[in-house]
Amino acid sequence: MFKSNYSSILLEKAVEQFSTLPGIGKKSALRMALFLLNQPKENVEKFASAFLDFRENIKHCKVCNMISDTEFCPICSDNRRDKTIICVVESVRDVLSIENTDKYNGEYHVLGGIISPMDGIGPSDLYINELEDRVSKGSINEVILALSTSMEGETTSYYLFKKLSKYGVKITTIARGVAFGDDLEYTDEITLSKSIENRQIFKQ
Amino acid sequence: MFKSNYSSILLEKAVEQFSTLPGIGKKSALRMALFLLNQPKENVEKFASAFLDFRENIKHCKVCNMISDTEFCPICSDNRRDKTIICVVESVRDVLSIENTDKYNGEYHVLGGIISPMDGIGPSDLYINELEDRVSKGSINEVILALSTSMEGETTSYYLFKKLSKYGVKITTIARGVAFGDDLEYTDEITLSKSIENRQIFKQ
Repeated sequence: MFKSNYSSILLEKAVEQFSTLPGIGKKSALRMALFLLNQPKENVEKFASAFLDFRENIKHCKVCNMISDTEFCPICSDNRRDKTIICVVESVRDVLSIENTDKYNGEYHVLGGIISPMDGIGPSDLYINELEDRVSKGSINEVILALSTSMEGETTSYYLFKKLSKYGVKITTIARGVAFGDDLEYTDEITLSKSIENRQIFKQ
Repeated sequence: MFKSNYSSILLEKAVEQFSTLPGIGKKSALRMALFLLNQPKENVEKFASAFLDFRENIKHCKVCNMISDTEFCPICSDNRRDKTIICVVESVRDVLSIENTDKYNGEYHVLGGIISPMDGIGPSDLYINELEDRVSKGSINEVILALSTSMEGETTSYYLFKKLSKYGVKITTIARGVAFGDDLEYTDEITLSKSIENRQIFKQ
């Protein structure tokens, strides 16, 4: 019996690779592989080249570190956006979540993670110096800290507060409408947009 | 605001392609695309080539129509299997489900679908003549019909019964332990293996 190898090494390898994707178990992976088997070859090639092209050619915005097809992302390049407010987030996904609320018109800064000594991630591993550079130039009025409410998130917020407050900029955090321990990504749009509207002055 | 385009056309295309996969919505697709973004390029290329290679090079067994890396699949090539019993299934996935029970030691025949006038699928679109050829050679004692209990499945079973009974072969169906309307794929192994053990003579 071929319990583990699906009767085909080619199939086994495809399933193995699909199951590396987040949230995909062996059964879903098998479903995906067999689905592609029934698709025209052109579609399968189109599928592969879409994410290979994405992985190969995506850039990071030189200002805010958001992913972008060009050197400066569409948000930083958009003159209708308020250049005096920066919303600091952990990841690209957080930017997409906030943009999706249609309630925020400032700019962003993607840290690329949060300070986490347990995982060996210190301030120098993040895009923090670049944030300080932006703030130190004097044209920023407000920095919104939109990090998660985990211990690491709070630590990072506090670190940024200490680092940025000397520039006389207003530092706020998003309202705690976002449930403790929840990721921004899974928060519904209304809660998330309220938490930006009701942002509060950061208190030590 | 870039509600629909994710700030990047490269990202948008990757998300679009991932969401063509079965069971994957826009949110999961985004998660997958951003996951690949954080992987080393080699891993992403390995992922792509695994299923491209599968799609490009997979064969169908010349006897039973199961997918295979070689002209004859490992089951048909295995001399320890009972060559006198054929279990007729709709799809490759059904073979994998039954093999997974470790309770069946005969051979298979993959029809590649079921008769479905609504979808324009007639007997000639399926791998039915090849099944008749196998049975007509006289060395088969039993044909197990393991098709779904939908109207199309029952129709196909009846069609096969009419076609094969003239060869004096015993025709059975798997026991109705599999709930009506349920796919074999989602049936637990115990129910599925019982339904093979308790298979019954096909009645008109």
